[in-house]
Amino acid sequence: MTEVSERKLDSPGEPGMYEELVRFYARQMRLLDAGDAEGWALTFARDGVFRSPVRPAPVTGREQIRDGARATAADLAGRQIVRRHWIGMLEVEARADGSAHALSYAQVIETPKGGQPALRMSNTCDDVLIREDGRWVVQDRTIIRDDLP
Amino acid sequence: MTEVSERKLDSPGEPGMYEELVRFYARQMRLLDAGDAEGWALTFARDGVFRSPVRPAPVTGREQIRDGARATAADLAGRQIVRRHWIGMLEVEARADGSAHALSYAQVIETPKGGQPALRMSNTCDDVLIREDGRWVVQDRTIIRDDLP
Amino acid sequence: MTEVSERKLDSPGEPGMYEELVRFYARQMRLLDAGDAEGWALTFARDGVFRSPVRPAPVTGREQIRDGARATAADLAGRQIVRRHWIGMLEVEARADGSAHALSYAQVIETPKGGQPALRMSNTCDDVLIREDGRWVVQDRTIIRDDLP
Repeated sequence: MTEVSERKLDSPGEPGMYEELVRFYARQMRLLDAGDAEGWALTFARDGVFRSPVRPAPVTGREQIRDGARATAADLAGRQIVRRHWIGMLEVEARADGSAHALSYAQVIETPKGGQPALRMSNTCDDVLIREDGRWVVQDRTIIRDDLP
Repeated sequence: MTEVSERKLDSPGEPGMYEELVRFYARQMRLLDAGDAEGWALTFARDGVFRSPVRPAPVTGREQIRDGARATAADLAGRQIVRRHWIGMLEVEARADGSAHALSYAQVIETPKGGQPALRMSNTCDDVLIREDGRWVVQDRTIIRDDLP
Repeated sequence: MTEVSERKLDSPGEPGMYEELVRFYARQMRLLDAGDAEGWALTFARDGVFRSPVRPAPVTGREQIRDGARATAADLAGRQIVRRHWIGMLEVEARADGSAHALSYAQVIETPKGGQPALRMSNTCDDVLIREDGRWVVQDRTIIRDDLP
């Protein structure tokens, strides 16, 4: 066997970058799960793009991203469901232009008040992140659901 | 949109602190899941407090914390169930007094011998940790279950 | 209570080692889940050993490890199932000989195309890793399934 098939990373990134992104995801997903639609929107670049298989078209820009999260939060609250996004198995590469390419797995867990938690979705998340005003934000996110063809 | 709604962290902490706490949780939860009640108790401060929705009152001090873990371990062993606590989506802020405030998500997975694993609980964990004899210990823990009102 | 029962770690490792191993697991498991059997095999030492309760004997060496992964990938593809391995709750200790001892929990999640994801297995993973050509590889892995006696 040769080493030919090894994936080559652009670069593992400067010291601290991986941890910054681990912490970014924890913060970003807690904002979403807490229903803080505006806080969630601010974790995207001003012209950030969110591509999800449950949306017919990409969601573009913070206002659209905020409005989408707000609608979802209202729906979940109405059905008395707590949703948790777990991001894990994170791979990060630093790109020469200063952006980061981050691949991760995502679990979506839902718990109805008075009921049992259930694993609702197993997804992958493919992000390009940039630094805006010194903080990481998502420039472009693509979600792939494991259950869809 | 303004930055007004952004949560302000006290401080992200000195280098290495986040990783120390990630490793703390891995070690702490393995002790609990392995039924090592005394080892588990030693991961709390001497006057540590554990607040759980399944307990009528806070559990206070290492002896009470050890006894609670011992009773739970005996119950699980009797029912031949392996329980695993997964801590994830960890956010940490360093406080000016040297303590750490840590927020995390928790999954509780149970597997009966000969059976299928099941996600039994989705919780959040809100900890204040301090350094005692050079090591992190939990001063105050509050568990919130997603299924309870 | 005394400190007698405290587990003593050999050493927490040099700076950066824990993160390297976190990233190693993310990369290794993504290779497996993507069906890249050769890439997966290259994450083991040339004479690496894989001990799994579902195999009658240890799988030894990259060719056997690759062939095993290839057979599993073909089976999953035939049944249109996406499998995800989540590694978490990682504990690492550095050994005096330069190797690393890593303990982790593992979730195996399966999603059939058009269906719901399910947590299929809750396992623990006990690894000895070494550096080969400057990169971490698994020298010896033992998987324990929570459901087996």
